[in-house]
Formats: sequence, C-alpha cells, structure tokens
Amino acid sequence: MNNLTRRDALKLASIASIAALHPGNLHAAQQQHPPVPVWEVFELTLDGPSTGNPFVDVTLSATFSFEHRTVTLDGFYDGDGKYKVRFMPDTIGAWNYKTVSSSSLLDNVQGSFAAVAALAGAHGPVRAHNIHHFAHADGTPFFPFGTTCYAWAHQSDELQQQTLQTLRTAPFNKVRMCVFPKHYEYNHNEPPFYPFDRTAAGVNDFTRLNPIYFRHLEQRIGDLRALGIEADLIVFHPYDNWGYSTMPAEADDRYLKYLIARFSAYPNIWWSMANEYDLMRAKSKADWDRFFHIVEQKDAFAHLRSIHFSREMYDYARPWVTHASLQNSEFATAPEYIANWRKPIMFDEVQYEGNLNRRWGNISGEELSRKFWLGVMVGCYVTHGETLLDPAGPFDENTTPTLWWSHGGKLHGASPAQIAFLRRLVEDTATHAAPGSPAVRAGFEASANPYYLNATAYQPDGKTAHTILYYFDSHQPIWYEFPLPDGAFTAEWLDPVAAEIIPQPGTYSGKAKLRLPGKPFQALRFKAVRAS
Amino acid sequence: MNNLTRRDALKLASIASIAALHPGNLHAAQQQHPPVPVWEVFELTLDGPSTGNPFVDVTLSATFSFEHRTVTLDGFYDGDGKYKVRFMPDTIGAWNYKTVSSSSLLDNVQGSFAAVAALAGAHGPVRAHNIHHFAHADGTPFFPFGTTCYAWAHQSDELQQQTLQTLRTAPFNKVRMCVFPKHYEYNHNEPPFYPFDRTAAGVNDFTRLNPIYFRHLEQRIGDLRALGIEADLIVFHPYDNWGYSTMPAEADDRYLKYLIARFSAYPNIWWSMANEYDLMRAKSKADWDRFFHIVEQKDAFAHLRSIHFSREMYDYARPWVTHASLQNSEFATAPEYIANWRKPIMFDEVQYEGNLNRRWGNISGEELSRKFWLGVMVGCYVTHGETLLDPAGPFDENTTPTLWWSHGGKLHGASPAQIAFLRRLVEDTATHAAPGSPAVRAGFEASANPYYLNATAYQPDGKTAHTILYYFDSHQPIWYEFPLPDGAFTAEWLDPVAAEIIPQPGTYSGKAKLRLPGKPFQALRFKAVRAS
Repeated sequence: MNNLTRRDALKLASIASIAALHPGNLHAAQQQHPPVPVWEVFELTLDGPSTGNPFVDVTLSATFSFEHRTVTLDGFYDGDGKYKVRFMPDTIGAWNYKTVSSSSLLDNVQGSFAAVAALAGAHGPVRAHNIHHFAHADGTPFFPFGTTCYAWAHQSDELQQQTLQTLRTAPFNKVRMCVFPKHYEYNHNEPPFYPFDRTAAGVNDFTRLNPIYFRHLEQRIGDLRALGIEADLIVFHPYDNWGYSTMPAEADDRYLKYLIARFSAYPNIWWSMANEYDLMRAKSKADWDRFFHIVEQKDAFAHLRSIHFSREMYDYARPWVTHASLQNSEFATAPEYIANWRKPIMFDEVQYEGNLNRRWGNISGEELSRKFWLGVMVGCYVTHGETLLDPAGPFDENTTPTLWWSHGGKLHGASPAQIAFLRRLVEDTATHAAPGSPAVRAGFEASANPYYLNATAYQPDGKTAHTILYYFDSHQPIWYEFPLPDGAFTAEWLDPVAAEIIPQPGTYSGKAKLRLPGKPFQALRFKAVRAS
Repeated sequence: MNNLTRRDALKLASIASIAALHPGNLHAAQQQHPPVPVWEVFELTLDGPSTGNPFVDVTLSATFSFEHRTVTLDGFYDGDGKYKVRFMPDTIGAWNYKTVSSSSLLDNVQGSFAAVAALAGAHGPVRAHNIHHFAHADGTPFFPFGTTCYAWAHQSDELQQQTLQTLRTAPFNKVRMCVFPKHYEYNHNEPPFYPFDRTAAGVNDFTRLNPIYFRHLEQRIGDLRALGIEADLIVFHPYDNWGYSTMPAEADDRYLKYLIARFSAYPNIWWSMANEYDLMRAKSKADWDRFFHIVEQKDAFAHLRSIHFSREMYDYARPWVTHASLQNSEFATAPEYIANWRKPIMFDEVQYEGNLNRRWGNISGEELSRKFWLGVMVGCYVTHGETLLDPAGPFDENTTPTLWWSHGGKLHGASPAQIAFLRRLVEDTATHAAPGSPAVRAGFEASANPYYLNATAYQPDGKTAHTILYYFDSHQPIWYEFPLPDGAFTAEWLDPVAAEIIPQPGTYSGKAKLRLPGKPFQALRFKAVRAS
C-alpha cells in the first residue's frame, strides 16, 4: 500500500463509501473494508430509518479499536436514510469498529480495515508543538500563513472555483471560513443553500439540518485539503440575517455535534468557536465554555480549538483552548502572552490590506506584510485578509463588490507576494537545515532583549542557532555590529517588499559588523554554516 | 518710538552698553538711558573689581521697578573688570533700577529708561498657554517645530555660520542645544573654547567661568533670535569628556546662576535642565529639584523649564516644571499625560531621521514626519533631528562626520520639507482664521474618541471648530463619512509626504461622505466657511 497514490487511495475509500452496508446481513459478521492510509478518511455508510426526524430521533456512535486503544465517536445522518460514521486512523495496523445505535438497523454493526502508510504529503492534523509553534501529528512542522475568506463557500459555484484557483498559487496554508453564511457590510447576498430546513417565508426548523449544505461544505474542506490548506472553521459568528446567531442552546449543541461528527475525520480542520464571540449578545460566557467542552468531548482527533474576539479577549489560559486567535496587533505583548499561556499565538485579525472606509479593512499591503514580519519576530503567526474596492467601481457599504476577505475570488493586493517571501524564509528552517538535518525545533524564538527585532530558529539540540532573522522595521541603519551566537554564519540582505535576497560575501562570527542597505523595512538573515 | 526699526533700537541699546558707567560719578544721580523696546535686552555695564576672583568674591544684583512692581535679578562678571546687569522690560513706560553689591564700586547704582513699544515681530518669551499649548508673552500663539543641534555652537566658526544659514530657510523655530561641549559617539572633537579656566593639562578651575565662552554662546542665542528661533538651552548633560557632568554642587549652582544672570534677559531661551538626566550618575534627584528651584528663584522672566530623560521619566507633574520634554513616541498616551499634568507635551526625542547603527538615529524621513503628525493629532509637539551618514564616506562610531543632530551644518533629509508643510497647516489656524479673526485658542485638541486620528483647532469661543485635521496614518480608505461638527466646511486632501494640498469641490456639513486618495499616510483638512 506504500505505493498507492493519493488518487488510488481516495478511489478505494470512495468505493467503500458507495457500497452502503445493509446491516441486516452484517450484524453477525465482520465486514472487511479496503485498506485506508493513515490520516485519510475512513467512511462507513449505513442504511437506517428515514421516518420521523432522524436528526433528533436516532443516536449512532461507533467505537474504533486498535490493539488496546479504543476511540468512540458519533455518526451523523446524511439524508435519504443514509447514516455515516467517519474515522481517521493515526496508526498503521488492523482497526476494528462496532456501532451502537438507538435504531436496531444501525446497532452493533462491526467491521475492520487495515490502516496503511500515509500518502505522500499527508501528515495528519495540525497541533500545538514546541509550546508556541505548530506541527502536524507526524511531527512535520507547520507554519501557519493563513488568509481570511469568511463566506467563500457560500458564493456562486463559479466564484468558489475562482477562489480555489487563486489559492492554488497563493502563499496561504490556512483559511478562516464561516460554517454559516454571512451578512455584513459589503456582504448582503443570500447563500446558495441554507444549513437548516426553512420555509419559503424564512422560518427555520433548527431540528432539521440540511445535508446538502454540509455536504457542500465538506467538499470545500476537501478541496482545501487537496491544496494543502487548513480549514479554520468558524462555528458561530454574529453577522447573521437568518437566525443562526440566536438559536436555542439545544439547537446550538446539536449543530455543533453534527459538525464534529461530519468533519472531524478531515485532517485539515481547526475549530474556531466563533468570530468576534463578544458581539454575540445572545450567548453567555458559559455557552462558549460549553461549546469548547463539547468539542473536547466529541472530537476524537483533537483538532485545534480557539475562539476569536472583537474587544473582550477570551481567557486563552483556559486549558481547553489550544492556541490564541487574536484580534489586535499587540506584537510587543506577544512574549508576555506566550509566557502566560504557553500556547501558540495567532494574530488572526491584524486589519486587512484594503481601502474600505473601515479601519479594519484599509491598511496597505506593505503594512500588512510588515505585521507578518513583526509576528514572526516574536515567535507568532499572522493572518492575511484583503478588502480592496475597485477604485473605478461604486463603493459604499450598500454595494456588494467581490472582496477576498468575504467572498474569495481573486487577490489584487501587494501583500501576498511579500507574505510568500516570508513564508519561504520561515519554511527554509525546516527544509534546508544546517548542519544537514531539519531544525526539529522549528519555529522562531524572539530574542529576549532585542535592540533590533530578531528571532532565532534553533537546530535540533534546541540551543544552536540555525537561522537568525533580523527585521529593522522603520529603522534604516547603514551599518550595525551584530552580536552573533557561537558558530559561523552566512549573511544575506533581505528586502521584504521587493522579495529579494542579496547574499553578502564571506562568513561572520562573534561581533559581526555589516554594512546594511540604509533604507527602511529591510531585513537580514544569518544562516549557520555547515560544520566542516 | 513706534517707528523705530529693530536695527535702530539695537544700535541705541548698543550705545548704552558701550558707554560703561563710571559708578564713582553716578552714585548720587539717576543715569538716564536711551529707550528700550519691550522684549529687547536692556544691558547695564559697570566697572568693578578685577582682582581676586570676581566670580566668587563679588555679589551684584539690581532691582528694576515700574510703578508699584519691582523685579530683582543678578548681574554677572564679564571679565576685564566689567560687570553687567541685563533686563528685558515687558511693559511700556518708565523703568528705574538700583544696584546692590558687595563691592562699593557697584553698589547703589541708579538709573532709568523708557520701555517703548515692541519691535515688529518681537512677542516676548514663550510660555505655556491654553493648558497644553504655547504662546509668547504678548499672546501670540507659538507652535514649536523644533530641531536638535546639540553641539552646533561648539564647532568651527565656518560650520556655525553654515548652521545659521541652514536655519534661515529650515522649518524649525526651536533648537535644542547644549551649553557645555559634547563628547559622544560620532562626536569627539574639542570645542573652540572651554566654559571654565583650565590648565594645559586639562585641570579645571570651576570657580572661574570663561566669559569668552559664554559671550560666544550668547552671540549664537542672539543669532537664533534674529531668525525667530527659540534656544532650548540644555544646562547639563552626560556626554562629557572634561568633568562638567561631575562638578561639585557648589560649582553646579554657581554655573547655573551665571547662565541665568547672563541669558535670562534674552526673550528666546528655554531652560532644559538636562539631556538624559538619568544617565548622570553623579547627580541625585534632589540635585535636579534644586536646579529647578534656582531657576524659579533667579529667572525674573519665567522662561520655560523642563528636563529630558533617557529611561526614567522625571515627574513632570511637579509644579516647577512648565512642560514635559519626553524621550519616547508614546503618542497614544499623550491624552493621559495632558490630563494628568495639564501642561504642554514636547516629544523632544522621537528618534532622528538617519542611518546610524543606533535605533535612536536611523528612522526614515517619512517616519519622522509621521511622528510629527501623530504628535499634532494628540495636541502635542515633536522635535526633529538628523543623523544621516554619507553612504559614500567611512562610517563607524570612531569617525567624526558632520551630523546635523550634533554639529549642525546642512540638512540632507526628507523630513524638513514635510515638517514645513505641517507647520504651515498648524500656523494657518492662527493666521488665516474664519470667520475673520485668529483662533486665539490656537493649538489642536485631539478628538476624544477618534475612529481615525483627528484634531480640531477652535475659534475664539473655544467651541466652534475652525480647522479639523484628519491623519490616516497607515490607513488608506478610499471613502469615509466624516461626522462634522456644526457649521459648513471646505475640504482639502493633504499629502504630507509630497507636501501637496488638493482642494475638494463644494462645502460639507453634517455627516459628510468624501472620496479619499486610497493610499497610505494621507491627511484631510476641513476649514470652517466664513459665516455669510
């Protein structure tokens, strides 16, 4: 199975899924499924009751076991009498499962499959790593360079395809996106589907979820996965025109559990409990804590969990939060955040490259890229967004232009190329290591007392500098004496705006005096020379 | 005397000065002097003892009286047996004086002169006004747009002349300058004169001041005055190679009193007790307080008094401090400073336009100008400095290039033109007022809750907006709806970098929606339309 291509494997999984099991035949016998690579989705489809309201009437769970380990998770109703259970194996070997259901049609279904080696490029879910950094489940470092397309999955199919086309070459490996449709300034269009049954007059039946809606969304999650992009799923948000921000608690919980049952076997999802949770007046703090607890309890794959605020910061110290998801640009405070929370810090909303009337949507591309640098220099990560109105078009809050931040489409700004440059510099620490091995402690550590902002990525010993980045921000020294740590280093001038690397001759060690470009917003990279 | 030119008046004063009085002839009679315009320097020169040490042996003071008012101040020894008393009348009319001295040659000298109308352009010393703004003694608003030339008066005469030539067209109306010579990175040259007698081996006699040194300095103060520039005199500083930062308290006090006696009748001086006081380890906090008290007691003309810190902020709330002189760029904190201290806030060191290795001396011209805007937007004032090394020259801390910040010379940077533009905008509020009179409440008040930074200069009633400046900083809205106060306004786009004003058609009131340039670092001005 090591030689299976991703396409082959997905085909096999697809076949397994299509062959819906007829439980009547199987209650006694073990069903043997085709092999599934580690970090791919195993999907069990069962025929069950379609009368009444399957979303509330029928319970279904399955326990997957591998040697002494067992993992129990919920299935979900996918409409038309079909029930599904999804699972993502993390270990090579023989896995067995057995269902429990309130419906005898779905109960005590048993089977097994072999989990085989991961496909090339599949590394499993991203988790916190090295305190304030990230890595995939298999240890591969993950450096989030995310973007924001809140409602891209709720636009026309043509626009969604354009968004995917854009993401194919964009420098982003994470997308913040809303599960629910969005209604907000510059965003007044209806979604193609609705997440709940709903009358023509717009009355929701929150007890009946719409499988078409979620099937569509999981297709998009899969599309992102194929591009190597994490889907940072925003579960609740306040930009609502349909009643989804003010559902009763019971409906909230049912919806959240449904998301977990459907999506958690996808390796590339993150849980963002809300965007701007504090603007959702109908929810209490206890509600948010409860949602976190539901995810803790139900997500068998321990995907990342956070929540995003507008003004009142959530207490990211709470143990059920895996990382901070900030709306501010307090980079100078980041070392304190890290020291207090011992978690990764995502600056998920630092204002967008754009030209809207709004402060949050009208910084220049240079300023946004600058914030990415400021974030990396303090050992954190920053998220992109773009809100550029066409200067030739009509532009006020009553029009619905296509803005990347909400609708997706095309990128027009200056920042993506600059962010791509920084991403390469950061990923270089994991791929071009000296003296010959990846820096397993991947991720930059801020200098404790920087005269100029600088950050170091360490070699596997966690002590020896691998790469040192200096970022001079608005400073433009024409020379500086750099206090280098032990070792010899090459030096390169970096122009973060022009995305240029200008190697400097020779090697440097000790107190290294270098001439510098003498213009603002420049950077420098020292790389450890391979020991001879 | 109203028709006297400045030159005529100075000639008269000069004659009075040259005609040194022979006290033997005068003890009985009133000496009648030529008239002196208000805010000019009246100087009385007396022959006295030259034996012993006149600096410590002889006391001399004079009391000037106008009707019921009396003002007592000290004279000083100017070498060669000459003693001087300087006075600056603030009121038109007949002034009398009478000396008191430990020397019978100088005691009980009496005389009188008429103070006549101020010369055109002379407005008297600058003082705090409207809580956190400044005005000359005659009420004329003063908006400080200062620069920093710490040691310009201690360079070659040629370089000093070049500095004055530069200042003639530069946008600066205040210069921070050290009384003592300076020894620091990039500044290792000896001064042409020393402030105290000193042996060839460099041993100082702190009991003997060098009149040549101070005569030279007051010539420079006069040169600045002729250019309409305030001399922000730095009394002590830590950049010392000669022992002036570690004198005994007695010598400190004698030196300070000498400065006051010599210089305080110049209308254009400010007292800065120190630069980076907290780096002067030989001084205690009590010393600084004592210096302030000496100035309070001895400076009959109540010039502005402040002190500048490096890291440990002096307590600017103390009543003897007239304004804050900050070394930081905490513009966002300025409203709090103003609320707490109820004084003008000078951001006197916000880093300099330059390219040195040092953080404090290598920001871009655009960044420095930006800080001027940020300061004005919060109702404060900012000071310029330039530390630009010639990229073609040798440049490290052991060379002595000519840097404006220390030596004067020429300006090479981009910021002066941009600062000139802002200064004109600010001064416009005092000179081109609507509806027809100067805004006597001159000075900008920050908006309490700015969505974008904005500040208002009010009309004489203190309530009606005269000019509203918006500064968008890194934001680049392509449109915005401005919440205007009562009244109708014209609007102009301002480009602070290109120093351009682009008038917008029509007038605006209420919620005024305007198209904007959609690029960063732009500004907007609303001016009240004259009531019809």
